[in-house]
Amino acid sequence: MSVEALFNPRSIALVGATDKSGWSVSTLLNLRTHGFSGPVHLVNPRGGVVHGSPAVRSLGEIPSPVDLAYVMVPTAAVLGVLKEGAKLGIRCYVILTAGFGEAGEEGARLESEIAAFARENGLTILGPNGNGYINAAAGVTPYGLPIPEPLLRGSVGVVLQSGALASSVLAFAQARNVGVSLLTSMGNESVVTVTDVVDHLVDDPATRVIALFLETVRNPAEFSRVARRALAAGKPIVALKIGRSRLASHTAQAHTGALVGDDDVIDAAMRQLGVIRVRSLEDLIITSGLLAATGPLPGRRVGVVTPSGGASEIIADRAEDEGLELPPFAPATVERLAAIVPSFGTVQNPLDVTGYVLVDRTLLGRALEAVTADPGIDLVMLLSEPPRAAPPDPAPVLAMYRASSRRIAESPVPVVVVSNVLTDVTEFGRRVQRETGFPYVAGGIEHGLTAIGAAVRWSEAHRRAATAAPAAPGTARGVWAEGTGAPGVARGAWAGAPEGARGVWAERRAAALLAAAGLPVVPSETAADEAAAVAAAERFGYPVVLKASAEGLGHKSDIGGVRLGLSGPEEVRRAYREVVAAARAHAPDAGALIQPQRHGGIELLVGVVRDPAWGLTLAVGLGGVWVEVLRDAALRVLPVDAAEVRRALSELRGAALLNGARGTQPADLDAVADVVTGIAAFAESLGDNLESLEVNPLLVTGSHIEALDALITWTR
Amino acid sequence: MSVEALFNPRSIALVGATDKSGWSVSTLLNLRTHGFSGPVHLVNPRGGVVHGSPAVRSLGEIPSPVDLAYVMVPTAAVLGVLKEGAKLGIRCYVILTAGFGEAGEEGARLESEIAAFARENGLTILGPNGNGYINAAAGVTPYGLPIPEPLLRGSVGVVLQSGALASSVLAFAQARNVGVSLLTSMGNESVVTVTDVVDHLVDDPATRVIALFLETVRNPAEFSRVARRALAAGKPIVALKIGRSRLASHTAQAHTGALVGDDDVIDAAMRQLGVIRVRSLEDLIITSGLLAATGPLPGRRVGVVTPSGGASEIIADRAEDEGLELPPFAPATVERLAAIVPSFGTVQNPLDVTGYVLVDRTLLGRALEAVTADPGIDLVMLLSEPPRAAPPDPAPVLAMYRASSRRIAESPVPVVVVSNVLTDVTEFGRRVQRETGFPYVAGGIEHGLTAIGAAVRWSEAHRRAATAAPAAPGTARGVWAEGTGAPGVARGAWAGAPEGARGVWAERRAAALLAAAGLPVVPSETAADEAAAVAAAERFGYPVVLKASAEGLGHKSDIGGVRLGLSGPEEVRRAYREVVAAARAHAPDAGALIQPQRHGGIELLVGVVRDPAWGLTLAVGLGGVWVEVLRDAALRVLPVDAAEVRRALSELRGAALLNGARGTQPADLDAVADVVTGIAAFAESLGDNLESLEVNPLLVTGSHIEALDALITWTR
Repeated sequence: MSVEALFNPRSIALVGATDKSGWSVSTLLNLRTHGFSGPVHLVNPRGGVVHGSPAVRSLGEIPSPVDLAYVMVPTAAVLGVLKEGAKLGIRCYVILTAGFGEAGEEGARLESEIAAFARENGLTILGPNGNGYINAAAGVTPYGLPIPEPLLRGSVGVVLQSGALASSVLAFAQARNVGVSLLTSMGNESVVTVTDVVDHLVDDPATRVIALFLETVRNPAEFSRVARRALAAGKPIVALKIGRSRLASHTAQAHTGALVGDDDVIDAAMRQLGVIRVRSLEDLIITSGLLAATGPLPGRRVGVVTPSGGASEIIADRAEDEGLELPPFAPATVERLAAIVPSFGTVQNPLDVTGYVLVDRTLLGRALEAVTADPGIDLVMLLSEPPRAAPPDPAPVLAMYRASSRRIAESPVPVVVVSNVLTDVTEFGRRVQRETGFPYVAGGIEHGLTAIGAAVRWSEAHRRAATAAPAAPGTARGVWAEGTGAPGVARGAWAGAPEGARGVWAERRAAALLAAAGLPVVPSETAADEAAAVAAAERFGYPVVLKASAEGLGHKSDIGGVRLGLSGPEEVRRAYREVVAAARAHAPDAGALIQPQRHGGIELLVGVVRDPAWGLTLAVGLGGVWVEVLRDAALRVLPVDAAEVRRALSELRGAALLNGARGTQPADLDAVADVVTGIAAFAESLGDNLESLEVNPLLVTGSHIEALDALITWTR
Repeated sequence: MSVEALFNPRSIALVGATDKSGWSVSTLLNLRTHGFSGPVHLVNPRGGVVHGSPAVRSLGEIPSPVDLAYVMVPTAAVLGVLKEGAKLGIRCYVILTAGFGEAGEEGARLESEIAAFARENGLTILGPNGNGYINAAAGVTPYGLPIPEPLLRGSVGVVLQSGALASSVLAFAQARNVGVSLLTSMGNESVVTVTDVVDHLVDDPATRVIALFLETVRNPAEFSRVARRALAAGKPIVALKIGRSRLASHTAQAHTGALVGDDDVIDAAMRQLGVIRVRSLEDLIITSGLLAATGPLPGRRVGVVTPSGGASEIIADRAEDEGLELPPFAPATVERLAAIVPSFGTVQNPLDVTGYVLVDRTLLGRALEAVTADPGIDLVMLLSEPPRAAPPDPAPVLAMYRASSRRIAESPVPVVVVSNVLTDVTEFGRRVQRETGFPYVAGGIEHGLTAIGAAVRWSEAHRRAATAAPAAPGTARGVWAEGTGAPGVARGAWAGAPEGARGVWAERRAAALLAAAGLPVVPSETAADEAAAVAAAERFGYPVVLKASAEGLGHKSDIGGVRLGLSGPEEVRRAYREVVAAARAHAPDAGALIQPQRHGGIELLVGVVRDPAWGLTLAVGLGGVWVEVLRDAALRVLPVDAAEVRRALSELRGAALLNGARGTQPADLDAVADVVTGIAAFAESLGDNLESLEVNPLLVTGSHIEALDALITWTR
């Protein structure tokens, strides 16, 4: 839905304007003081004088066209206003009125009536139960709460699923001297949604970064689409998504279910989409402000210039947390710095030019120049900030900052300025930045390094997206892309679920399906009696494994249904008798499976489960304790390509085992990634009826990879 | 060393005062503007007029007694000043001058001369190479840098090992409206050390919380002593200790070495001592400010009252991170709140009283009162903050805050006020707090919850320390306490190292030593030939284990020196031949050990290594991959008691295994803790010559616990 007209009206009617309402007072005041130059009409059923101006009794009495109606009437009257407005040709609305879906059943009914009316009549509605928006770039501010002064115009677009937090976000952005292009308080999103606004911001020339506060992702498919557009356009999305503490399990049958909480899936999806997830309102604004100022950063090798040894060491600690590199300076840089830094200082990265900055005011600037010229550095972090209090004569201070600003502007690599601690940029600080061009200051070492780390990782995702071959599926183009299938698996070879797909498919049928799809599965024979079991064992060669086999039989080992390392016919016979007897207590038609016994190797769990919101989601991890005790799994929303699966494997805490720790044979990670990608693509091919597919274990011995067991759960 | 006189002089001389030095200008200005009422003498070898006042040529020319000399003369002249001062009876000095230990060998020589002179003459010296101190409580501020205005007096004592960060700390404390009692910039600590100042602050009635910025812990024993005193006195120490990113390994022989980095040990020691370790300057001040305002908090059950649903959910996420509980409200509270919160709101913890607060200004306060009365709540977190800008008429705002303040003051449980975001408390905000008694505001949900979490954990440590039986060793009394030994191990039964303690003691001798100390060790016999091996095996019963045995033989499995599961005499004979042959390639006198084979159970690693700074340190963790891949170990500086070891076990990522995950038999954790405590006490008893002692594995099967292998490394 296009929201261009919603955010750019030339005339506005405040419907339900009254002196008794703080919202009404604020909205009019906001429109009058923040640059709206078109007519503002006040509508009150009793007419008279409102806010000192004459009011009309209805929209129909307004003599000139109205582009936007800001609706503050009682809940029951809202639909009437829309009907009248629609008749008059008013297309855009902000509904501040509450009492809809958030207030119970009757409210929800009213809200769906409104949404239906809007759909039928092509109306664009923000809300209900939202405070409106602040289009700072255009000076249009139909917004129902006081706007903290001054309203700073800038290039961060803010979209909030919480009205109450808007004031905090604006106050904090102001304290960071971060300007907004547009801020919207979404309300109940009954017509215009978060993704509509994000879509708009991706195309909005005034917006460079999109900051989101999300309580829920209402439409993952749509969210994925706009997030991919933003990544491709080089506009970072920074999101504070709450609800981390809630975990949900999707399926009890497979281990995978316990690994895939709602929030884990959102986390994985955001990472795949290049959305920067932050955990605090401070990081939301500081990170957005940084990226609005710098755009993509070229790499993760950081040169650090500070006037303090203590700060340098805090920075070293935090840089390591963020995966940033502080490489040693090149010899030429060291030589140059040795001539600049006082003899009692040490030339190293991070650089402390020493407290001598208080004596020689050029020291920091000269050191900065030397470090920015270092060929092994992608960006420079400069510890500095504008002054807090205005001195009696500001001219010398302004001149000094003008010189710094020039040096920073002329640097061949980006210079990110970070302050020691997170204190407000004061009014004088803002003046210094405005008048001297002194750049954005990330607030404090702690949040500043969080922001730099996030910006570097986003920049990498942006470059991957830009360089991905157009035909390749997977992360670069993100979740919900139309993948073309993984290596070795012909996508589309299945038209949805196979015959009889319902309930639980245990090993025999699940494995057969995998094998038919060309995936590597351990050989296996079913045996109807003891003799057949022994015959199968002799064909494989001893030792063998014998497992109970029956439709709907889940975790076999729990019922004594698995015997390992059987080394002769007698052992096989006895195992057959015992296992089948045990299994028949659960499934009367239970038989047995014989497989060759495998030795060594590393056991992986590869699971695919259907997330109710995001769809099929891959979990890959090391098996055994890693899954059960550590919950050590990496998630990806499907589809994925092999490169993304390799990144997922490298995220595991137990990744070292795959690389050959503890004397294990190193895994052929390319081969593993191919098989896992194939399993994922296979799961996708099984259609909507698939609830979960789990291969556990997938045995990896060097480049020999084989599914030893599998379990499929169907929805119906 | 007592520093009482250093921080409370009645007269001060500025030696080296000159108009040309910014430090000199600042120091005098600071003394004159922050309340120092005694005489300030200016000393300049040329005399004349300095800073507009007459200067004397030397200390000797000052007619009245001088309590403190603030020394800014050139490096080479410092000792001369001390000599003159000592002769005149001046006992206390701040040395601002740099060029000492930090500047190289010659400087270090000069510094040790000064330290020696101070020792011989009983002088108290802060510095050199430090900016001095700010005794805000007493109004004595011999401090060489500009002090940001206003200097807020309060109850946080700040001790900094970085001069350059003092200004940032002061600026940030001011922005939080946190006042300091004393701030010291330690410099090179050649005479007065961090621990001297902390010791002073523990006794200082003006100080309630001690905030430290540490680059290094110079004297762990002394640090432990003062930290224990502070904990017992109920004065929290909050420390930002940098250098997290550096890891060091102490010993290559044992696995334990790789687990025990410098920073890991400091982290463990601080936790044992009840020192709150924070990771940012913001958390240092916000946490200190909180504890200065609240003192110990009674528990971790938090009732949350907010005017915003979005903020409530951010709080829920962060509270979970911090291990805080947000229990459901009691029925009576729910009933009371239902009558207060608007019908479209939801009564739950965390509570969102809704945006209706803008209409009904009493809403938040009434809800707060109801929640503070809930019997299942230990403290209440209220989302609120003082206003930023002064309205034209401040009276109604002040009245409103006065009412809030009264309600908070009258609450039966502590109320912690937290703001939405971390913005400065403005000048008007400070006025509101000052005039209405509105309490401390923790800055922003993110840092506010970090602070509450830390304060709750510190309060628990404080209570443990208060209730610990005086005779019990371990955490409560902390590291470096004089322990009385762990259960089952008679402390003092060994007088240091045994005969021949040098090099590496492998299994046979190490295990014998453990067994002699009464620790449970698997039975074992040495066998000089095949027949003896078989005889031993028959005595134990099959299956048995056979291991190579020789002095100095380390990791046996690496050389094929271990055979498991030998089930008959022939297997034992063959194993003997092969193992001994393999071992003799490394140790010509190698023989073999026979042990009964154990099955099942959980393998622990229990290691004790000597940290160069903190002394013997215990590492306990699960064996196998847990150690090698995950580095999953919990550390404790010795001595420890069994309760502390139980806490250590519960910190392990693999703790669930001990509790019976994966179908293992749950471990008897009390019995495990006893044995581990016994091993630790035994290691302590072995004297200074012990480098490391490692029991790996310690096999735990329910309450049956047995060391299967051990390795001791001696220093000499």
